[in-house]
This record gives sequence, structure tokens and C-alpha cells, in this order.
Amino acid sequence: MDWVKAKIRNIPDFPKPGILFKDITPLIKCPETFRRITDALHGHYHDEKIDGIVAIESRGFIFGSALAYAMGLPFHIVRKPGKLPPETIDISYDLEYGTDSLEIHTTQIEAGERVLIIDDLLATGGTVKATKELIGKLRGEVAACAFVIELAFLGGRKRLGPTPVFSLAIYEDE
Amino acid sequence: MDWVKAKIRNIPDFPKPGILFKDITPLIKCPETFRRITDALHGHYHDEKIDGIVAIESRGFIFGSALAYAMGLPFHIVRKPGKLPPETIDISYDLEYGTDSLEIHTTQIEAGERVLIIDDLLATGGTVKATKELIGKLRGEVAACAFVIELAFLGGRKRLGPTPVFSLAIYEDE
Repeated sequence: MDWVKAKIRNIPDFPKPGILFKDITPLIKCPETFRRITDALHGHYHDEKIDGIVAIESRGFIFGSALAYAMGLPFHIVRKPGKLPPETIDISYDLEYGTDSLEIHTTQIEAGERVLIIDDLLATGGTVKATKELIGKLRGEVAACAFVIELAFLGGRKRLGPTPVFSLAIYEDE
Repeated sequence: MDWVKAKIRNIPDFPKPGILFKDITPLIKCPETFRRITDALHGHYHDEKIDGIVAIESRGFIFGSALAYAMGLPFHIVRKPGKLPPETIDISYDLEYGTDSLEIHTTQIEAGERVLIIDDLLATGGTVKATKELIGKLRGEVAACAFVIELAFLGGRKRLGPTPVFSLAIYEDE
């Protein structure tokens, strides 16, 4: 959607050389754009059975929170290790170099709850795939994944299949 | 407000021995409570001239985002070092042991913009005081500070004066 792309700031060589960083702060600085993003996501899932929203720390909180408020749904957060008090379960996943992990409260999601995972950006999909597994451990169901930005050339959507993916601003190449 | 306190989970000895951690995840898991929190904050500032919302990473994003959406105001984020692309300005502040710092985009806030700072919890007020100074550097004005939880026995409110402080759940002692 061009009205989303028009507000994204491209920053070369951040956080390291060769990376073209997508800065979402202009999107949220503009109240009309932020509302339109939230309403577009809400509209997309209007006829779906969604029981809760799961957001990934920390930019995911920004878009997930407004969406959970707008949709009137439970809001769940997935965090980096050590941020959530007990009891939590965690999952490790591979990065380009090394590994990272994510945590969620064991009581956060009900068995059978159908959740929508939201994050600001879909790249290779590693973090979101790990989040899916975390939800699976709690016997929740991932109904769909939504993103403001998708870097399609990194193949994240394929990695998340068969879960449906919806993104507002899709970049086919770098 | 008792309906807020009723949903807060007290976790002893987290993140370290002797600390009674206030867990806000049950607040946001309950859509009615999350809506009521957002609407209570919105209602409190309804007749104030507020031009923007500033939230502090990362639990501040949760409550700030929904509030910015509900109020139709620009949403600004203050982050830990190295998370925001250039150009940023930063500020250092003292912790119990050592120092920490916060960053914001130099173009984030307009000169003269009257902002509301929001975070999940007011403790000693060090982080929020640093955020006030950061906003001052951009020649913004801090109209008020709002919190879901205030640990009044730690004296943060006094440290933020004369800026008005509003909190939904105030704990007078530990």
C-alpha cells in the first residue's frame, strides 16, 4: 500500500553496513497513518475468528496494542529472555550468527485460543516462526500473522506457511 | 483505582531478591480492563491541550500506543541506545549501580509541542526525568506524565515536579 510506503524512512547501513533499515517512527508520528494502519489490519480480520493478539517485543507492541484495543481482544506479549516474571516458557531460535530466545507466560494463552501474531516487520521470519512454536507449546492456534512491512525478497512468508500472512507494505526487492 | 489493582499480579523477588514486581500482563490480557485503562487516561486529559504522546521502551509502548490511537495524537517513542537509526539525541542518567541512557529522533518532536509522557510504572522517576530532559532538548514541553502503576513510597512524583503526575493504581507502601 503506497500510503504506508510513503511514510517509511529508508536508512542505509543501519544497524550495520549493507542493511537498509525501515524506520517506522514517521508512521506513528502521523495520527492519520497510524489510525489507517490499525483500521486496515482490523478490517482485514473482521470476519475471521480471532480470540487474541500476540505481539513481539518491542516494535510489535506498538502496532499490536492499538489493534488489540481497536478489536477489543486480549493482548499477549512475547519478550526477550529475563523480562517476564515466572512462570514462563521459552524457545530458542537460530540467528545469522548464534542464537536468541523468546519467552511468554505459561498462563497467557488458553488452549485452543486462536491468535493473530503481529510485528512491525517480516524479514526472514525466524522470530515469528519461533513465536508460532511458543504458542503451539501452550496449545494455542495461530490463525494468521500480520506485518506493517514485509521484505518479500527474504522469503519469510514461505517459512511461516501454511499460516496466512498479511502485510501492508511489501518490498519485492531491496 | 481498585479495578486496576485487582488485575495486577505481585511477583516476589523478581527480577532480583527483595523486589516485589508488578506484572501488568493480566491487565492487557483482559480486554475490558485494557479498554478501561486507556479510556481513563483519555478522559483525564480530555480538556488538556496535549499535542503528542511519548512512550518509554518497552512496556510504555503498550499503554502509549493504544492511548495515541484513541486520542488521535502523534505517537513518539523513546528507546534504549542503538535501537533508533540516526539522527538521534541521547541522555544519560544514573541508576542504582552505574548509568543508562535513552534516545529519541532529533526530528521526532516539534518545538513547542506539548506532550504527555506515558509509562507503565513510576518508581524512583529516573527514567522519566531523563525523558523530560530529552524532550526539553528538542524544545518540546512536557504537559504531564501518566502511569498505570505508581510506587509512591519511592518518591518519583516529587522528582518529576512541577510536572503534573497522574497514576491509575497508587501503592503507598510495599
